[in-house]
Amino acid sequence: MSTVWNSRYALRTLGIKSSTIRELLKITQRPEVISFGGGLPAPDVFPVKQFEEACHAVLQKHGGEALQYGPTEGYEPLRAMIARNIARYGILAKAENVLITSGSQQALDLIGKLLINSGDRVLVEAPTYLGALQAFNVYGAQYVSVPLDHDGLRTDQLESCLRLGPKFMYLLPNFQNPAGVTLSEARRHQLIFLADKYGIPIIEDDPYGQLRYEGEHLAPLVVLDRENLRRDNGFTLGNVIYLSTFSKTLAPGIRLAWIVAPGDVIGKLVQLKQAADLHTATFNQMVAYEVAKDGFLDQHVKLIREVYRERRDVMLHALQQFFPPEVTWTHPKGGLFLWITMPEGTDCRVLFRTALAENVAFVPGDCFYGNDAPDGCRHMRLNFSFSQPDQIREGIRRLSVAVKMQLRGAHPPLEVVASNR
Amino acid sequence: MSTVWNSRYALRTLGIKSSTIRELLKITQRPEVISFGGGLPAPDVFPVKQFEEACHAVLQKHGGEALQYGPTEGYEPLRAMIARNIARYGILAKAENVLITSGSQQALDLIGKLLINSGDRVLVEAPTYLGALQAFNVYGAQYVSVPLDHDGLRTDQLESCLRLGPKFMYLLPNFQNPAGVTLSEARRHQLIFLADKYGIPIIEDDPYGQLRYEGEHLAPLVVLDRENLRRDNGFTLGNVIYLSTFSKTLAPGIRLAWIVAPGDVIGKLVQLKQAADLHTATFNQMVAYEVAKDGFLDQHVKLIREVYRERRDVMLHALQQFFPPEVTWTHPKGGLFLWITMPEGTDCRVLFRTALAENVAFVPGDCFYGNDAPDGCRHMRLNFSFSQPDQIREGIRRLSVAVKMQLRGAHPPLEVVASNR
Repeated sequence: MSTVWNSRYALRTLGIKSSTIRELLKITQRPEVISFGGGLPAPDVFPVKQFEEACHAVLQKHGGEALQYGPTEGYEPLRAMIARNIARYGILAKAENVLITSGSQQALDLIGKLLINSGDRVLVEAPTYLGALQAFNVYGAQYVSVPLDHDGLRTDQLESCLRLGPKFMYLLPNFQNPAGVTLSEARRHQLIFLADKYGIPIIEDDPYGQLRYEGEHLAPLVVLDRENLRRDNGFTLGNVIYLSTFSKTLAPGIRLAWIVAPGDVIGKLVQLKQAADLHTATFNQMVAYEVAKDGFLDQHVKLIREVYRERRDVMLHALQQFFPPEVTWTHPKGGLFLWITMPEGTDCRVLFRTALAENVAFVPGDCFYGNDAPDGCRHMRLNFSFSQPDQIREGIRRLSVAVKMQLRGAHPPLEVVASNR
Repeated sequence: MSTVWNSRYALRTLGIKSSTIRELLKITQRPEVISFGGGLPAPDVFPVKQFEEACHAVLQKHGGEALQYGPTEGYEPLRAMIARNIARYGILAKAENVLITSGSQQALDLIGKLLINSGDRVLVEAPTYLGALQAFNVYGAQYVSVPLDHDGLRTDQLESCLRLGPKFMYLLPNFQNPAGVTLSEARRHQLIFLADKYGIPIIEDDPYGQLRYEGEHLAPLVVLDRENLRRDNGFTLGNVIYLSTFSKTLAPGIRLAWIVAPGDVIGKLVQLKQAADLHTATFNQMVAYEVAKDGFLDQHVKLIREVYRERRDVMLHALQQFFPPEVTWTHPKGGLFLWITMPEGTDCRVLFRTALAENVAFVPGDCFYGNDAPDGCRHMRLNFSFSQPDQIREGIRRLSVAVKMQLRGAHPPLEVVASNR
């Protein structure tokens, strides 16, 4: 059936790795499974009532506009509000430097489309965000990977990688996905110095920046870059494109994120976005603006921080309580994830199967690398935002059972897993 | 400023034509201008009340799900409903053959990404939908153009074009954008015969299929293809990918459309969509389903048909009344557009300027061609769905003034246009 199609696919589709995790994670949607696998926000903190009021207000006042086609750049009041909000973090953007996208995934796709020719190298953290690899793979990206430690990107290993001539760097400085680590202030300065020295631009992805549970806010790269360039002729944005989103602070189901970039880069991205989906839903932009405009967002982010801080602490405490001493993990100061390191030689893809038999799920670490990383299989990513505290405690207990079995070299019979499907 | 970026753009961005029309159309948003330029549905028929009720119901009943991440394929009940709805037109698809997209523009982008390698030829109608050209240009498409007449694509010229080996055909058989013509039944059969003979698949874009104001519904290509292939082993979809949308029947500001294709093609498109925007907004899909599910859509489409039929008739009547005899136009049996042909040698880009001085706007025809078409400048596209009947009459009167000036060889002084900006 439909064999006429097979011969016609463009070569670039070969660049897409079949996303086995996402397939596996479907299995984990059984109600008895406690999943630390997804990157889902907690639905119990979604501002449902505020959305309802906002939908009502927008449709009452601006129904004709909200349901009509809109400008590719985005809804002007929302762009201006985002520019005002990020000014608090020192990012001096105007509304015209803000492009609204259909989630950050679209931002990554547009950036890949704008910057990557097949075979171009992209410098990424090892590990890095899977969705970025998927977006860039479509355009034939090759990767230069720089390892992380507890202070984020190993800047001592950066210069030799920059000499390989990557087209750009893609980095998540805050509460990194998947590792949960944060780039230290000293390293941010080193990074910007080297980026400038080698003339390599940066894509700074900051979906979790507002979700800090301890410690002080650190200046984003886009701000340090501007200071480094010592531009004093009014507003400028330089060599850093900054990405953020409403997915973690309001809700992901409305698919709203944004790109902050110099005007000429925004102009190119607007052309590409026009060809990709004309514009992001007018209705969603107006509703998000209505929800956020009168200070609700700040107040709501405080609530999310409290809820997630507790969940992180519960997970860290349960890991301490249940996990054997040869296993280690990161201590994220914010965000949604922590990163487990198993003893050398462990294969977390096998552990995934064992864990599923115990009704608990996570994402095996090997999917988060741009280059082959045999060491990646020692790791697992755990999400602590989605499950309730008592589920987190129970899930970590179950996972510890699987971990201990794995360390003893025991594997569950395959039919146990199969029968649970 | 930010010169680091310029040297880094991928070559493919050279493929994007700067969209001068869309820039020009911004000028036409002045309130005194009557615009036949955009392809906008009438906001006065948007079902605002039904959307309000649906938002309330969805958030009350399924707030957590509606605001959460969702599957890339789309919201299952919506996919199933679309499959049921199109079965009435003989399209025998199952829910798993339906991929929800963020507007039809995304469908075109994903199809371009899936099928076009730089330099590949795409067979298009001349003229054809501008948004498709923009989507395909990004991937380096070249075009093979087949002219239209009042019965749609000139199938007598098709075979020689198919011998040039296009990767696929992109066609709008019903109430074509921009020409407003409909492919006749006889030609649909010829087309499918030739597509099969040369093994060239078809993208059938049908945004307006339900908006027929006279005559009988004609079987879509996707149905004729299936019949031609004489597949009697239950359900099959073959060599036609079918696209449609809620933009013209519900509202464009929610960005909801769909692709119907064989399962293996959907599988590939899902991978590309996951990399492009993860999924289309869950909330919008659930709200659209809630609005449409209990038969409201059928009833609403009847209302839209009545409103747009009247507007079409008013425009046709006004053209008859005001336009000089040397100008001709198409008589669309549905959709949103009609297509004007001026005497040979006319340049509608100049006429656009003259018209703007009279406070009326349209889209010059030259933008709707995949290949150079010197003849394209004789044409203009007029939209009849957006403006109220009295505005349509007045707009055509104004346009006739500009047309007559143009035919006399008179042009407005440039400063008139400038002072009105």
